[in-house]
Amino acid sequence: MARILPPPALPNAPGELRQDPLGGGWVAITAGRAARPEAFLGDVGTPRGPLGCPFCPGNEHMTPPEVWADRDPGTGPDQPGWHVRVVPNKFPAFAGPVTTAHHNGGLYRSAPTAGVHEVVIHNPDHQATLADLEVPEVARAMAAWRERLAAHRDQELGAVLIIVNQGRTAGASLEHPHSQVFATAGRPDRVQAELDRLAGQACAACATVAAERDGPRLVGTTGDLLTICPWASAAPFEALLLPAAHQPRFEERGPDDDTAVATALRDLLRRFRGVAGDHAPYNLVLHSAPPGVDDFHWHLHLLPRLTTYGGFELGTGVIINVVDPDRAAEALRASGS
Amino acid sequence: MARILPPPALPNAPGELRQDPLGGGWVAITAGRAARPEAFLGDVGTPRGPLGCPFCPGNEHMTPPEVWADRDPGTGPDQPGWHVRVVPNKFPAFAGPVTTAHHNGGLYRSAPTAGVHEVVIHNPDHQATLADLEVPEVARAMAAWRERLAAHRDQELGAVLIIVNQGRTAGASLEHPHSQVFATAGRPDRVQAELDRLAGQACAACATVAAERDGPRLVGTTGDLLTICPWASAAPFEALLLPAAHQPRFEERGPDDDTAVATALRDLLRRFRGVAGDHAPYNLVLHSAPPGVDDFHWHLHLLPRLTTYGGFELGTGVIINVVDPDRAAEALRASGS
Repeated sequence: MARILPPPALPNAPGELRQDPLGGGWVAITAGRAARPEAFLGDVGTPRGPLGCPFCPGNEHMTPPEVWADRDPGTGPDQPGWHVRVVPNKFPAFAGPVTTAHHNGGLYRSAPTAGVHEVVIHNPDHQATLADLEVPEVARAMAAWRERLAAHRDQELGAVLIIVNQGRTAGASLEHPHSQVFATAGRPDRVQAELDRLAGQACAACATVAAERDGPRLVGTTGDLLTICPWASAAPFEALLLPAAHQPRFEERGPDDDTAVATALRDLLRRFRGVAGDHAPYNLVLHSAPPGVDDFHWHLHLLPRLTTYGGFELGTGVIINVVDPDRAAEALRASGS
Repeated sequence: MARILPPPALPNAPGELRQDPLGGGWVAITAGRAARPEAFLGDVGTPRGPLGCPFCPGNEHMTPPEVWADRDPGTGPDQPGWHVRVVPNKFPAFAGPVTTAHHNGGLYRSAPTAGVHEVVIHNPDHQATLADLEVPEVARAMAAWRERLAAHRDQELGAVLIIVNQGRTAGASLEHPHSQVFATAGRPDRVQAELDRLAGQACAACATVAAERDGPRLVGTTGDLLTICPWASAAPFEALLLPAAHQPRFEERGPDDDTAVATALRDLLRRFRGVAGDHAPYNLVLHSAPPGVDDFHWHLHLLPRLTTYGGFELGTGVIINVVDPDRAAEALRASGS
């Protein structure tokens, strides 16, 4: 399929958050992102490999200047010598000061797409996913996640999330494995729903740990962390990685804990690969307490993308999942990690 | 990718609706549907064509017995001679009596996947999509939609929807164009949200008609129907087809009105094809008032699938759309229908 529309003149054109007056959901209209390479699913070329990849060492000039990096002593910013590198997203969905107000024009409610949108390049290796890397390398990426979550403490931010889109079907437009940091001025409904449900004595994550830690949907434990297939999994082989204790923030764990998270996450991703195949697409979503919120239970969602939503899911919000999570956990446990 | 798990023993194994204790959303675990051909995105073979297609004339024995058909005089049920044919879904996501109760087991809330799941085969032609058919043929499919919506009047049903998944990316597992009828015992949150917003004097659909009928996002009008690109479009080239008047039910329109809907819908789909390409995937969702509800404004969503959700959408519920609806409407107006 050819590119559908010419890219807009301004790749960083400001966007607008708009509420759907019929269904109530929120949409970020960010026309600037249409200028990305392969913004549309039909724009598929052959994989381009490291040549010309903006995330590969030697091509640091192809990204905006880095905002943080884990680098070898003696190497300078925006030069090779890094292990993990964080740069602003060149086509941000969210950008700009967070103090701008909502606009309510009667039927149409809108707000600026204020916030932050960064890219965390996990590793210099163009091909290696989190499942391929060694544990110490994954732990360096976990440290970068902690660092960026801690860097965005502005109380005006409604949510700060770490996201991985692995594979084109899962939304990745660049091949070189990376995460994204999204910080939004408003608080998305899905984030608020979890804040309501994961607070205090009634925390649903604590209750899940109690219900599942010795049950058929447990995939495994690593130190203080559990990996389970949720009872209400919305996708085949969905998994939840979370601490047994009610810890509000991922970023308040110490550097020594990065190895435990890296071990648990890599183990899960290798088991998933064993079940679903080498290039099976997935998303990761890290939910940690937003700035100003101290009562929460952080957790990481693995959301495989082996099936797709149809009109039923889009028209009702109810998700059809064709794999029972009991069987998913059984398959993940049996899979070599 | 090879098939991931062997299909469960019972293709019609009953499913279970489960509420996610962390996010609050509902999931239908329907392991029986994993037995469908091409249930997983990785299960892609070459298109099989009419040979062996359960929806093609001559293969009527491959489906469950028909529940309704528009057929030539003198032809019998489950024989060729039909123009539109409705059969129960062989792998239903929703089935069974709707009087069964919710179960609330503390942390875990569930309900049976009670309801109805049917397939409407639009036309004997294996290849022709709604955009390819002549208007009188599309009108026959619209009559089938009316008939099935009217057939499911049980007051215990929380929602009755007509869905089209066109193209594999949009969730279609069989190539022969068809719609699906979903009737669910419970009322999905997305359906309830629209009922709340499209009732009475404050109806957001009536307000949308007033705001958009002479505006830049109008694609066109056909009789009493308007086609617009919604101000808060969640996908590139999303469109809304709706009557100017506050009509609660699609199925209460008369047979004479089928031609107007067929003309408007075919025009929209041909314009979309002109913009996005011959095989561009999309969903259609028809929202009509559920049984027992008399105050609503029916409408049809065209939801193109040219981009995909990433982890941000799944983790927040906020959808990023890279095409401004003003530009989408401009492109659709300029496209030959």
